[in-house]
Amino acid sequence: MSQSTHTIPTSLGIDFGGTSVKFGVVRGQEVIGHAPAITTEDYQEAEPLIDAIAYVIENLRNQYPEISAIGVGVPGFVDFPTGTIHNLTNVQGWKNIPLRDILHKRTQLPVVVENDANCMAYAEWKVGAGVGIDHLVCITLGTGVGGGIITHGHMLRGARSIAGELGQTSIDYQGRQGAYGNLGALEDYIGNNEIAAEARDVYASHGIKKSIADCTPASLSKDAAGGDDLALTIWTGIAQKLACTILNTCWILNPAAVIIGGGVAKAGEILFNPLKESIQQQLAPSFLDGLKILPAHFSNNAGIIGAGALALEEANQAE
Amino acid sequence: MSQSTHTIPTSLGIDFGGTSVKFGVVRGQEVIGHAPAITTEDYQEAEPLIDAIAYVIENLRNQYPEISAIGVGVPGFVDFPTGTIHNLTNVQGWKNIPLRDILHKRTQLPVVVENDANCMAYAEWKVGAGVGIDHLVCITLGTGVGGGIITHGHMLRGARSIAGELGQTSIDYQGRQGAYGNLGALEDYIGNNEIAAEARDVYASHGIKKSIADCTPASLSKDAAGGDDLALTIWTGIAQKLACTILNTCWILNPAAVIIGGGVAKAGEILFNPLKESIQQQLAPSFLDGLKILPAHFSNNAGIIGAGALALEEANQAE
Repeated sequence: MSQSTHTIPTSLGIDFGGTSVKFGVVRGQEVIGHAPAITTEDYQEAEPLIDAIAYVIENLRNQYPEISAIGVGVPGFVDFPTGTIHNLTNVQGWKNIPLRDILHKRTQLPVVVENDANCMAYAEWKVGAGVGIDHLVCITLGTGVGGGIITHGHMLRGARSIAGELGQTSIDYQGRQGAYGNLGALEDYIGNNEIAAEARDVYASHGIKKSIADCTPASLSKDAAGGDDLALTIWTGIAQKLACTILNTCWILNPAAVIIGGGVAKAGEILFNPLKESIQQQLAPSFLDGLKILPAHFSNNAGIIGAGALALEEANQAE
Repeated sequence: MSQSTHTIPTSLGIDFGGTSVKFGVVRGQEVIGHAPAITTEDYQEAEPLIDAIAYVIENLRNQYPEISAIGVGVPGFVDFPTGTIHNLTNVQGWKNIPLRDILHKRTQLPVVVENDANCMAYAEWKVGAGVGIDHLVCITLGTGVGGGIITHGHMLRGARSIAGELGQTSIDYQGRQGAYGNLGALEDYIGNNEIAAEARDVYASHGIKKSIADCTPASLSKDAAGGDDLALTIWTGIAQKLACTILNTCWILNPAAVIIGGGVAKAGEILFNPLKESIQQQLAPSFLDGLKILPAHFSNNAGIIGAGALALEEANQAE
């Protein structure tokens, strides 16, 4: 072992997504090692998938014996103090699973289990775009819309540690009905699939026939950058809806910064310019003063890095 | 002096409203003494009004020498750490006034200055409907709509200590334009005056001519209790809009309780029943489980009691 492996704490970050479980050996803001991802749809139940995860953990620990803690980010509601998963969105057979205790028993290492969007927020706060900012809202835009919140220098978790579900907040009290019966949820307007479906309809209403595949956020941002007026209009619409939720978090939480990540945010200025304009037009000066609207520092690795960093932090506090 | 005046801490709570400044000597959850209110519109500038306030403070301290701290709740944005008022809504001449330092110099007592809705939330949390609940959202419904938030056992203040402005959050991203250019602010739908104006229009559209004075929330709740179907429909509409903001605070903050106070909340079950129904229909089970929707314990005295309690708390911490 080199000296650095003794001095720089190293952890294992696991990003448990809707389609795959990804693994990364985390040191500071870097991922220094990987293992092949596990495809979740190959598993109908929790137990065999946990076996597969434990197998990869063992292999990685043989390669990186300096791993001193394990963090898992999962797409669902987690009771953080006990590390028990209430339930997962889009993964079968995961209900009331005490994942922290199970993995701790198998590995004898400190383990934390946390919501995936909270992990991303933690990564941005500790080693990303939000370093040193103690009042922070992070929002991640993909198939779903997730959020993580830092207030007064602490992760805001709430009574049952499931706070920060920004994608479920409403932008229209009479709007579309969402997964929980909730009306007007942001996610039901600017999730990847909803953006594509709406864009296809906008083009169709102008006599332009496009497939859903030609209307992904990635395609739309390429078209907008190329000067396609309809694509630009669609992005302005996305920005106005996103602005509504960000404004609501500002009035409620008075953050110093809002960090925006995920696939949809890769549109860059095409999204950020109309978004910032919309926020400036609608927020009181005292709230605007000093408020930063920032792109996320991390992209694909945010969940792994956040889970790994959180695991080390919690392990230190427990010592 | 009786023995109790030595053992029970006593403070002076000042409720600085848009129309008057009210004073109360606070002991626990009781107001044991009052002084006549000062009418704010008699004063065009801050300085003479501060003189008048200082005069009343001196008189009350002569009557109650056991007063050991002063708390002031104000209708506007306050920098809590310094007790400086950024600006007040509806009171002339109050911009960047270091009220805490001014009153401390005059009285030599510990002074705190805080947003009025935060004072109400503090009263409910410390000695009201929310005692022992460490994740709490308070919302107060009157001419304006205000809020105060407790998370993880602390008042949530945010980066510039102006968090909790629930009345400014949007329920419709394409809605009415509010005081700050913001679209769809809750306050612009269910403030006292907006309720009355909308109710008058609803009656008019059914051929019933009513004055604004016959459409106040108090009148509407009397009419609804008497079986007036239109009044009941109006209250259901109010509840649906209020539910949108409460649901948003639930997704964002995951509170254990939401406390609702202010004049409009006096409608009681006529408001609370459709409100609870709307929340139950739209919130995920993990968020609903154990969530309490409660009427406020205090009514008119909440601001005074909260300011007084907060002053004692801060004075103790500073010791």
